[in-house]
Amino acid sequence: MDGLNKKVRDFKSNIDKKIITETKYFKYEKPFVLESEAVLDYLEIAYETYGKLNDEKDNAILICHALTGDAHVAGYHEGDEKPGWWDDMVGPGKAFDTNKYYVICSNVIGSCKGSIGPTTINPETEKPYGLAFPVITIKDMVNAQKILLNHLGISDLLCVAGGSMGGMQALQWAVSYPQFIKSCIPIATTYRHSAQQIALDEVGRQAIMADPNWNKGDYYGKEPPSRGLAVARMIGHITYMSDKSMEKKFGRNLKKKAYGYEFTQEFEVEGYLQYRGSRFIQRFDANSYLYLTKAMDYFDLKNNCPLAKSFSHIKNLKFLVIAFSSDWLYPPYQSKDIVKALKINGLDVTYCEISSDYGHDAFLLEFDEESRLISNFLTRVKKNSEELG
Amino acid sequence: MDGLNKKVRDFKSNIDKKIITETKYFKYEKPFVLESEAVLDYLEIAYETYGKLNDEKDNAILICHALTGDAHVAGYHEGDEKPGWWDDMVGPGKAFDTNKYYVICSNVIGSCKGSIGPTTINPETEKPYGLAFPVITIKDMVNAQKILLNHLGISDLLCVAGGSMGGMQALQWAVSYPQFIKSCIPIATTYRHSAQQIALDEVGRQAIMADPNWNKGDYYGKEPPSRGLAVARMIGHITYMSDKSMEKKFGRNLKKKAYGYEFTQEFEVEGYLQYRGSRFIQRFDANSYLYLTKAMDYFDLKNNCPLAKSFSHIKNLKFLVIAFSSDWLYPPYQSKDIVKALKINGLDVTYCEISSDYGHDAFLLEFDEESRLISNFLTRVKKNSEELG
Repeated sequence: MDGLNKKVRDFKSNIDKKIITETKYFKYEKPFVLESEAVLDYLEIAYETYGKLNDEKDNAILICHALTGDAHVAGYHEGDEKPGWWDDMVGPGKAFDTNKYYVICSNVIGSCKGSIGPTTINPETEKPYGLAFPVITIKDMVNAQKILLNHLGISDLLCVAGGSMGGMQALQWAVSYPQFIKSCIPIATTYRHSAQQIALDEVGRQAIMADPNWNKGDYYGKEPPSRGLAVARMIGHITYMSDKSMEKKFGRNLKKKAYGYEFTQEFEVEGYLQYRGSRFIQRFDANSYLYLTKAMDYFDLKNNCPLAKSFSHIKNLKFLVIAFSSDWLYPPYQSKDIVKALKINGLDVTYCEISSDYGHDAFLLEFDEESRLISNFLTRVKKNSEELG
Repeated sequence: MDGLNKKVRDFKSNIDKKIITETKYFKYEKPFVLESEAVLDYLEIAYETYGKLNDEKDNAILICHALTGDAHVAGYHEGDEKPGWWDDMVGPGKAFDTNKYYVICSNVIGSCKGSIGPTTINPETEKPYGLAFPVITIKDMVNAQKILLNHLGISDLLCVAGGSMGGMQALQWAVSYPQFIKSCIPIATTYRHSAQQIALDEVGRQAIMADPNWNKGDYYGKEPPSRGLAVARMIGHITYMSDKSMEKKFGRNLKKKAYGYEFTQEFEVEGYLQYRGSRFIQRFDANSYLYLTKAMDYFDLKNNCPLAKSFSHIKNLKFLVIAFSSDWLYPPYQSKDIVKALKINGLDVTYCEISSDYGHDAFLLEFDEESRLISNFLTRVKKNSEELG
């Protein structure tokens, strides 16, 4: 009976917990200079917030999303059945506890999820920018986020956190605005794209650009390059999983009983990849995929110097660096290089390599262990900041 | 002076060693039943031979090629500047010493390098088969090779060897015709394609099939699906190298001095991939790429039983299993599984994991260590066979 009662209580509390959120939009009407020196006449940034900014304004946390993510990190949009992309981690009583912290997540510029990017209408032509949109960098994304935070009246972040491309932004925050943030949690990420990482992105881009519908980026209002984008996404998916997780999930399972000796989706893994590809083209823009992968390829905090030098101006900033054992897209050795370079600068760094078979996807799935680590880390950062403050 | 003289001698001996070979063709005019139960009315097989079959007819070695290889394993074709694909390993005094052994290499069926495949004229329509060509398997390739060997009067192989897809054929030989062969050298290969290996092949196939020029395989005499095939090849190339070898070869080197902030080949690794893609489409057929990757995906010696059971009928066959430490396409653990299953059957197995940064490509590059291993192994097999014979 107790078990049943607990289930009923859990169910009820889950219903109660279904937090409704909505995406807000901030328009910045001044010119925004990019790292390339190109200028955007204005910015539009989609963002969501969770929890409340306290009176001391010292409980704000910025979460940065990965390649195909958006501002909707947690809670439910009205009418949606699925919550935001990191709902397991963000909410009341969760790792990023919205009872304690004011959490902000914004869509990166260059994306197609509400912030300015190649799908946005170019005021000069009154048509979507397409390839006329300037190439952006991780640093540009972070600079745009800084403008959003200024607008929200936040002059101080307790933490900036993110996985994958989100981790690159978190690291860029630490480098660009070290005095603005108290702590940084880069997860399953790197301090610079390696040759292999560039190569994987480039093949995805080539798949898109090989699609005649891509038409040099000028396909809005016409048939989009869906087949190319689907192939790019399939490549991505393979890199997000691990050999072991694919073996566990699919093995050599067939969709039918026996080999059909034809070029159809015979293996479950083939069906899965095509399904993921076909879903993705409904929710993502091919040009944005080009822009964001390019931004990651440009990302290089080392920049021909010892990495430690890039961090040498950072003071009193706490880091929690998390990697996953089976992540071959952003292998743990890259995180360890970050840790080493931070330690050389005498910074307070905690490193944890979580043992997981999920590959790169682990940062979205291993939330039990991630939650414990992040929750304790944030408590320590908060306490320390209160003692100092 | 001595050094210079040596150089001159070496140069002269290299010139002398430039062995001219040519591809021969064997037409088998009887119906050939495939594993799928489909029937080919005839076979055509391209092959090359090196060295001489001795009077005892006990010095023949079959070498099986990988996905995009051909019968031209060594020596030079008249007028060619580059030798065959494994010339470092096959020739007088080399690992497969053509002063001692009679080496045969044939193009697999399904390929486009002289043997019957989708580019061959279908006698029924007088047009290339295209997708009317039946789906083939690794076992079918081996059965076709057996017919060729019968034709060449070889009733006994000292060894069958190959890397990657060639290793699958070598293993299939051991399973299909254990009494026909004395030894087997599977290199950088697997006993069955894993979910990840199937997934990587499937993305390549999808890239080809997404190209409108593919036209359901009916593109002969028209514009071929070159862009799709190039993307497939680029994916392949990433899997043939390792993170480390790409880092060493390309790192983040740029083709120009600084970022161009545009979607061109800016990084050397991008240029390399595109170059390899553009070269490949000149020498390989997109449909053949589909057929051969499919054959590999079907390959499964385990077939829902313990792998050891698949080898239980093999007697007195010696194995040399070679894997490479950084090969993530056919990781060493798959070779170790083969070794374990052979050992369970009390077979004579030597296993060597060669430490290399070259990834899967190592089987084509690490010829020093491979040569020593193979040369000693073959000597032992030959000696043992003479003692028994």
